[in-house]
Formats: sequence, structure tokens, C-alpha cells
Amino acid sequence: MSVLQMSLREVSLALTDREISSAELMDVVLDRAEEVGTKLNAFLHIDRSAACAAARVADADRFAGRIKGPLHGVPMAHKDMFFRAGVRSSCGSAIPMPLADRTATVLSRLDAAGAIQFGVLNMAEFAVGGSGHNKTFGHCRNPWNAERISGGSSSGSAASVAARANFAALGSDTGGSIRTPASVCGITGLRPSFGRVSRAGVMGLSSTLDTVGPLARTAYDCAMVMNAIAGIDADDPTTAAAFSTDFLHGIDDSIRGLRIGVPTNYYSDAVDPAISHILDESLRVLQELNCVVTPIELPDVKAIDAAAAIVFASEGAALHAAQLRAHGEMYSEQVVARLERGFVIPAPTYLNAVRYRAVAAKEFLQRVFSQVDVIHIPVLPIPTPTITETDVRDGDKIDDMLGKLVGLTRPISYLGFPALSVPAGFTEDGMPVGMQLVGRPNAEATLLRIGHSFQGATDWHKRAPNIL
Amino acid sequence: MSVLQMSLREVSLALTDREISSAELMDVVLDRAEEVGTKLNAFLHIDRSAACAAARVADADRFAGRIKGPLHGVPMAHKDMFFRAGVRSSCGSAIPMPLADRTATVLSRLDAAGAIQFGVLNMAEFAVGGSGHNKTFGHCRNPWNAERISGGSSSGSAASVAARANFAALGSDTGGSIRTPASVCGITGLRPSFGRVSRAGVMGLSSTLDTVGPLARTAYDCAMVMNAIAGIDADDPTTAAAFSTDFLHGIDDSIRGLRIGVPTNYYSDAVDPAISHILDESLRVLQELNCVVTPIELPDVKAIDAAAAIVFASEGAALHAAQLRAHGEMYSEQVVARLERGFVIPAPTYLNAVRYRAVAAKEFLQRVFSQVDVIHIPVLPIPTPTITETDVRDGDKIDDMLGKLVGLTRPISYLGFPALSVPAGFTEDGMPVGMQLVGRPNAEATLLRIGHSFQGATDWHKRAPNIL
Repeated sequence: MSVLQMSLREVSLALTDREISSAELMDVVLDRAEEVGTKLNAFLHIDRSAACAAARVADADRFAGRIKGPLHGVPMAHKDMFFRAGVRSSCGSAIPMPLADRTATVLSRLDAAGAIQFGVLNMAEFAVGGSGHNKTFGHCRNPWNAERISGGSSSGSAASVAARANFAALGSDTGGSIRTPASVCGITGLRPSFGRVSRAGVMGLSSTLDTVGPLARTAYDCAMVMNAIAGIDADDPTTAAAFSTDFLHGIDDSIRGLRIGVPTNYYSDAVDPAISHILDESLRVLQELNCVVTPIELPDVKAIDAAAAIVFASEGAALHAAQLRAHGEMYSEQVVARLERGFVIPAPTYLNAVRYRAVAAKEFLQRVFSQVDVIHIPVLPIPTPTITETDVRDGDKIDDMLGKLVGLTRPISYLGFPALSVPAGFTEDGMPVGMQLVGRPNAEATLLRIGHSFQGATDWHKRAPNIL
Repeated sequence: MSVLQMSLREVSLALTDREISSAELMDVVLDRAEEVGTKLNAFLHIDRSAACAAARVADADRFAGRIKGPLHGVPMAHKDMFFRAGVRSSCGSAIPMPLADRTATVLSRLDAAGAIQFGVLNMAEFAVGGSGHNKTFGHCRNPWNAERISGGSSSGSAASVAARANFAALGSDTGGSIRTPASVCGITGLRPSFGRVSRAGVMGLSSTLDTVGPLARTAYDCAMVMNAIAGIDADDPTTAAAFSTDFLHGIDDSIRGLRIGVPTNYYSDAVDPAISHILDESLRVLQELNCVVTPIELPDVKAIDAAAAIVFASEGAALHAAQLRAHGEMYSEQVVARLERGFVIPAPTYLNAVRYRAVAAKEFLQRVFSQVDVIHIPVLPIPTPTITETDVRDGDKIDDMLGKLVGLTRPISYLGFPALSVPAGFTEDGMPVGMQLVGRPNAEATLLRIGHSFQGATDWHKRAPNIL
């Protein structure tokens, strides 16, 4: 098997067993990244010489017995919004960003675990948008079909991993920005519980919705990244209650008896039959793995999504207000149109939308998570649209498109619950489709265990796109 | 000396030394409270029989050597917004409030310290308003002159203590609601640092501005109450960083060398000469106590106050939105007029006003508190107005009146700094005037030490109004 086909887990083992050196691996990855980077617009910048030098240091360290951590010598590239001291992150925008005066905690932690960052990835402008459009750097293309969207906002993260040009990438998820690209690119992506992973040194968008998480080939790989990045960070007060977990602990355990809730409302409305079919098949697999599948009625998700939209627009507009005044013309129309909505939301409406979160989450815990361990829903209700279809600039079309792209992910963001997108099959035209598993707060390990079991019984995650 | 003239410190010692029993003390206090309560509208409810029974238990406990704490057997009454399980707090409103399902942490802590709550005190409707007007329960009167305002919103707290019908009272301070009534009633009041005293079980108004603190005869007495109520509370996340302090530790130490900053801008603008004169005299006393008085230029306080007004109106409107819809006609005109402003503030304006807080506080710390230990400013820039003068219902007059009543206190609230109001003299017409000492976050002990030294050199705080 080519090293590029290996999962993060496999490549880490190959490095540990010295089947390959980090320098050799880095060369192969860089060649692939440069090749598919051009085709897919997945990479914004690759630093070949620094990456190769770092890989040689990693090899020397390994030879001398100095192993930094479980990701020692593994090449990785991340969405271009995680700051590194002295470097400019584009944040997907044409506006010149300042040099960062600090390194994001998540990058420091990946550094400490031994990973080597070799580049930065394309993304939606300021992480606003679920399609992968980017007027400044070019739209990120879906590795399975260049005319289809790669999903957003972590477009490059998903496309690079799917294209076998990256083993794992950090992304951010405000309304679905990890899960959507993971689903449409056929990889695995985890939105952690709110407050579980530090956002210090990370570009913000919506302070009560933003999360940072991994996109990788498998649930196991996501757990490896989570082990490196999760936990309390003094620089991010929202992590104050984040307790430590080994996300790999028990990941091989049977999922027998786990209760999978399948919503009878909202998430079952207006789902395309092609998607329903794949979701039904994935449930059958979970039943074969001895999970108990239960229909479950959810609280008013429409109200939850409406509150999420209010919070998103208000916080996004507040964060961008000064920059919109100074550089409004450098934003894309769709991003301006979405952010501008926040300027006409009254403050008490915003504050009560924030306050409703605790009420809604409690209702979910009491009515849903008392009955089931996880909820099983689609990520997107429709087959992956084309780039042209989703190129809406403003007006009513945004609502229609937004409803489809974030309608099933954003309510979960608002509730603060963790959610995992797992490859679950392909539509007839060969595009991958993900299922979304949602858990209680801090139940990432359960989601990852289910994903890992599912991936032991299926091979959707092993299929690679034929790009070249 | 009559026990009613005693400070909290003195009455606690008298109880400890068994010069008086709690039952005897309670009788005297209740008589006084019932007498002046009628005249001043300071008390909303007095529970004579329960208070007397509790006092007898306190005496029996003391006789048996079971001393709860330093406030054992001391009668106290509090602003009617601190919940007690199974009791309805009026919150100063005609709207029937629900029975409380929990007791406020601050009340539990005073109970644990041995204090006996014998009644609840008048307040501004929902703690909105700096004058002491209350259309439901009648305006609380100033003990020094019944035609003058008692200050708000902790009107009854200040009036009852000033009238020698209460030894110390809890109040709340959002924009000045402890400091203003303390100043105009001639007593001592402490607004603690934001997050230093729990707000769990306390009526909210503006979640990022609300604080709970003591009103008492002396700075020493305020320290005694702070010792009982301050510190971390698991039921109030904003107290997460509140560390423990003995507020009496070092209170008798010399204040020699402490640097007192006197602002050359904002706080020196448009202050009535009668007030300036008293403030100047208080500075002379502090200099005699060997403090170093330094002129200091403050950052843009007008911008800070503007941000505070945005935050106050937004959060107040959000909290009252549903109740205003249901019972709008039961609110007073002025309270509705003030809360309604929040409904037209855009969410991003609110969010950026909240975000500016950290910037402004940092600027204050760097430019001001690097030069001085405390700031010395007026509480009110004008002599105490009459109840009639301040009976503005809506419109432009509110702004004019508000500017005067909260203009010097609300910016400090917004910054989250602690502030102490200390009696500093009397105007020619016999009305007391307070000075405001502002410190760094968590510098309450320094403020109390200065207040205590000042009260050792002056007797303004010992003067009692002649009510009857």
C-alpha cells in the first residue's frame, strides 16, 4: 500500500516501526500536495524546505530516542486560520491580515505531539459559508468531482485529506464547517463539544458557536488528533470545564446495546431519497453491530435553528463591523450579505437567543438523551450540489441554499453538542455521503467508538477519489 | 450610647460581651424599624414574631457556647430582591413574583455567620433608577429630609441604616445603586469588584454589570459583611476567580504613602461647588493621614459611560422582554422608558460595547492604576435633589437626570472595579455627601482600609438624622 493510502494511525505506526522515515514520507506527501493542490485549490501555501528540514530533525530525534509524541514526524496541513507567531494567516480573505503575535494553542499542542505542519489550506472567506467558494483564492474543488462543492468552511481540510495529500487537518465548525466538507468529501470529521478544544489563537467568527476539531480519514485518526489538542487552556476561558479524556480508550470495545435515536421529525423532513437510502443502510450496519435503533421525537429544532441564526449573524456582524467599514469592498457579496443581517438584530433578541440555548439543551438532554445514547441524522439532506448551483450572491437564494447546507448541522452547533460525520455510502453518481452522529456534551469518545466500529464493518472511508 | 447608635462592629461586641441579648436588641431594632419604616417607607415587610423567635434561639445558642459566626444574633434587613426559598421577593414591583425555589447564596452566608434577617427593604422597581422612587410601595424617603431622594436603587438599604433602624443591609449596584443611596443618606456602601460576590438567587438586571454588596454605618462594618458574603460560589460562574480575603486584615494599618489619584478630566467637569468643597476637604484629611494626592488624567470616560449605557439597556430589555409583553402596564413609566431603549440597540453594537470593556479596563490599569492606588471622585456631582425634581417619567428629562445620578458611578460599574462611598461632609442645608474611592479589581481591602482611616479622623459617619 502506498504510504499516501495509509491512515494517520497506520502512518504513525510505519514511522514508529521505521518502515519509512519522516523525510521520505514528507517528500511523498509534498509531491502529492503540490500536484493535487493545483488541481483542487486545496492548499494556499506549502513550505517545502521548512517541512523537509523539520522532517529530517524528526528523523534524527527518533534515531536518538527523542520521540515527541504519538504524531512524531507526521506531515499535516491545516485550515488557514490557526495562527502561528510571526506568520500571516489569510483567513480565506483578500484583506491583509496582521502578523500573528502568538501561536494557536491547538498548533502548539500538535507541535508538542510531534506533528509537522507543511502548509495551510483553503477555506471559505472568514469561515463564512458551507460550499467552499472562495473568490480570492479560487473555489476549493471536490476531489470526487471537480464541478461539485467541497463543502465549507473547512473546504481545504476535507479536500486535502480526501485527496490523500494530508493525513489529518484541523478545521473549525461554527454552523457545520467541519461536518459538511467531511461529508461531501467522504472523510471523517468531528465537531467537539463547545468548550472542549481551545480557540486561543484561532480566527473567531461567532464566539458562542465556534469550535475547533479534526478532519481525518477515520474516526480512530480523529481520536488521535483529539488526544493531542483537547483539554483546558488558560488562554481560553471557555475550556475551563474541559476535562481530560483518552479518546482512544475503549475505542475497540463493542458497541452492542448502544441506543441509536432516529428522529421522527425535522431531520426526517425533506431528505432526498438518495440520502435516506444511504442513511437507512448505515442504520442496518449499526444494527448488525448490535446497536438498538429507536425512533425518537425531538424538541422544536426549527426554533433552535432560528435562535442559532440570530446568534450567528449577531456575533459575526459584531466581530466584522469595523473591518466591514474599512474594507467592505474586499469581502465577497455572499459573506457581506450574511454578516449584514446581524446589524438589524436587536440586542435583546440576541441576548434571549443566547439564553434560550441552556433551556433547549436541557430539554434535549431530558427528552432525547435520556432515551438514546446518540442521534443518527444526515449531514446534508441533498446530494452534493455543484459549485455553480451554490454560487448565490445575496437575496432569497441564500436562505434557500443556507437552509440546505446548514439546516441539519447548525442546530447541533447551537446546542453545543459534539457531532461526528462518518462516510456512509455513495450516491449513484459516485459522490460520498456522510451520516451525522450527535452525542451528549463531552461524549466525543462514544461517537468515535461508534464511528470506529462502523468503519470496521464498512469500507466507505477507504475509497479514494481518482483525481489525476 | 443607645444600642441603635452602635455600629455593626460595636453591636457585635456588645452581644459577645453579653452587654445585651439578641432578643433585647431585636426588640429595640424592631420598634425603631416599625416607627421609621412608616415615616420613611424604608421597610416593605417586617416579620416581628419570627425575628424575635430567632433572636431567642441565638441567645440560647450563645449561652450554650454555640456561636455561629461574627454576626451571631445581629438583626439585619435587606433589599427585597435576595431570594429566600418559599418566599416571594417583591423586587420593588407590583407584578406578583413567583415563590423562590432557592435562597440567595449571600443570604445563606449571612445566616451561617449568625445574622438574623428581620425584614425586607424598599427599592427602586426592579432595581432600575437612582432616585428611590417607587410607585407601588411609595417613594423611600431620605432620613435627613423627607422631601429629598433617598437614592436608588438600594433606597431602603441606605435609609434604614442611616435611620438607625438596621445595622447593615445588602444592596445591589448595577450603575451606582449602592453608592448613590449610601452617599445621599450619609452611610458607607461598597460596590465590590465584578465577580467577587455571588449573585446566585438574586434578582438580575444587567448580567455583566450587576453586583451585590453591603451598605453599613462604617467601612469596618462593610468589611465584616464582605467577610461573610464574598468568595467563590459554584452556583454563580462569574465568581470562579474570586479568591478569599480577610477584609479586616490590616484595616487598622496606616495609609501613609498610599497614592490617591484626583482626576483632572471628566470627574472634575460640572461638579457643583458645594460638592467640590466637601471633596477637597476630604482630600485634605487624606493628606493629613499621609496619603499622597496626585492629579491624574483618565482615559475617555465618556466613551466608557456610553458603552455602559448600551450594555445596561440591552441586558435589561432582554431580561424584561417577556414580562413587559405580559405585564407592561404594571411597570412605572420611567422604568419602561429606560428598558425600552434596549429594544432598538443592534446586537453587534451591544456585543462590541461588551467587548470594549476589557480594552477600557486594561487602559485604566495601565494609565491610571500604574500611577495611583485609588481614584478619589464624587458619587453625585450635585446636592441631593428633591423627590419632585427627580420625578421624571420619560423623554429627554430622563437623560438629564440619569446623567447626573449615574454619570459618575456607572463608568466604574462597567469597568468592573470596586468602589466605596464614604460620608465626607454635609452641604449647608444639612444633607450628607459621600466621596467615592475606586480601586483596582479585587482591591476592596485597600478601599476599606482608607475608608476606615478616614472615619478614624472624621465623624461624618457618626452623625445621625433627627427623624422623629
